[in-house]
Amino acid sequence: MHFTAQTSSNGVIERDFTLDDVTGVFWSPASGSDHAPLVLLGHGGGLHKRAPGLVARAQHLVTTGGYAVATIDAPGHGDRTRSAQDRRWVAAMLRARAEGEPIGPIVADYNSALAERAVPEWRMVLDALQGLPEVGADGGVGYSGMTLASAIGLPLTVIEPRITAAIFGGVLVYESLVEAARRITVPIQFLLPWDDAEIDRQSGLELFDAFGSTEKTLHANPGGHHQVPWFEAEDSIGFFARHLGSARLTLA
Amino acid sequence: MHFTAQTSSNGVIERDFTLDDVTGVFWSPASGSDHAPLVLLGHGGGLHKRAPGLVARAQHLVTTGGYAVATIDAPGHGDRTRSAQDRRWVAAMLRARAEGEPIGPIVADYNSALAERAVPEWRMVLDALQGLPEVGADGGVGYSGMTLASAIGLPLTVIEPRITAAIFGGVLVYESLVEAARRITVPIQFLLPWDDAEIDRQSGLELFDAFGSTEKTLHANPGGHHQVPWFEAEDSIGFFARHLGSARLTLA
Repeated sequence: MHFTAQTSSNGVIERDFTLDDVTGVFWSPASGSDHAPLVLLGHGGGLHKRAPGLVARAQHLVTTGGYAVATIDAPGHGDRTRSAQDRRWVAAMLRARAEGEPIGPIVADYNSALAERAVPEWRMVLDALQGLPEVGADGGVGYSGMTLASAIGLPLTVIEPRITAAIFGGVLVYESLVEAARRITVPIQFLLPWDDAEIDRQSGLELFDAFGSTEKTLHANPGGHHQVPWFEAEDSIGFFARHLGSARLTLA
Repeated sequence: MHFTAQTSSNGVIERDFTLDDVTGVFWSPASGSDHAPLVLLGHGGGLHKRAPGLVARAQHLVTTGGYAVATIDAPGHGDRTRSAQDRRWVAAMLRARAEGEPIGPIVADYNSALAERAVPEWRMVLDALQGLPEVGADGGVGYSGMTLASAIGLPLTVIEPRITAAIFGGVLVYESLVEAARRITVPIQFLLPWDDAEIDRQSGLELFDAFGSTEKTLHANPGGHHQVPWFEAEDSIGFFARHLGSARLTLA
């Protein structure tokens, strides 16, 4: 893991990193403990590791919960090369949307292909992060991300026992995701945009229902795909504090 | 309002009161400010003002949020006389349940009759509470209660402009409740037991959908009617803090 840039403001140290051809950002408390619990954040489809909403949530997790936080660009997103096949999927999706045709089947293919590549990348990044003094190697790890980040996060959580609590939601549902949900047993928060124009509400309710977790909470809010209210970011602090602990609370 | 008993422990003063023939409990911080924001708590059907879950939530609101909290016995519950007609409803409900018949129609009649009596009682109690030095008369008031307490709380919130944020859920749905929900525009949290054996999940989703509020959040958790996880009580502190303010946060 190579750190390529570092800035610090408002009590948060922010470092860009690369690991093989994966590009990411790591945030940690400027005046924090070593061995903070770690939260992995994923970005939505078409976005990247510095999407403003993601950065705001990362900073909030650091300053309010004392967490270390990391994100990576999904394959073909942000600073990463987009393959010819990825470009064809994106073009097909944009064309279908422009022509008012259903984009579901294209998104399902594209998201599962991205997840297949992103899952081993996240595991490699997690190995490297747990070698940093800022990150605890023995505590649980949280994952949080909607839409594409859920399409990646669900199969990642199935296969990665270090992830012990996760926040998903707003994701196009296809059969392999429902199967992944059935195999997940860690505590879950599931954010459902109640008025998503492109994703059927019922499919979201069914995905929530499928999770094998004893503790799972559906949070539905009015609004479309990209309109999750900020208070859900605040709520997520309490969720992760219950399941990962909180460096802040431990130090207080 | 007559206070008939007072105890104090763990930073919480607890006082029984009567107002006309209404019996209730008032909790306030032992070392708090005057003029704390007020939360009204309602109990579920068949329960009373000292139901253990209600008392635990009241104490948590006082100690964690710095709120003043009040509850009353619903008509025919707790220390209040149950009328002959109320006794007939309860008997009919128990008989239907024992014989495996649907209890919905009986509960709907009983709950709406109780709400008709309880709404003016709550408003009278609220007038008296806002005359106490512990309670602010100018801030917003919160309401929180599931099942019967939602059947009462929805029409109360429609008619009572002092209630500016409310938590409902787990309630048998009938048409006048849906109409009340449509007229409610204050921020709402709606708790839906995902596996309620006696209340259809779809009816709960429809009631959530009906609320006229711009801010409304559905929280669904696995389990039946009486199995709302404790972390929802913790979450409610954040909800009320956003909308009522918090004496604790203001003092800090």
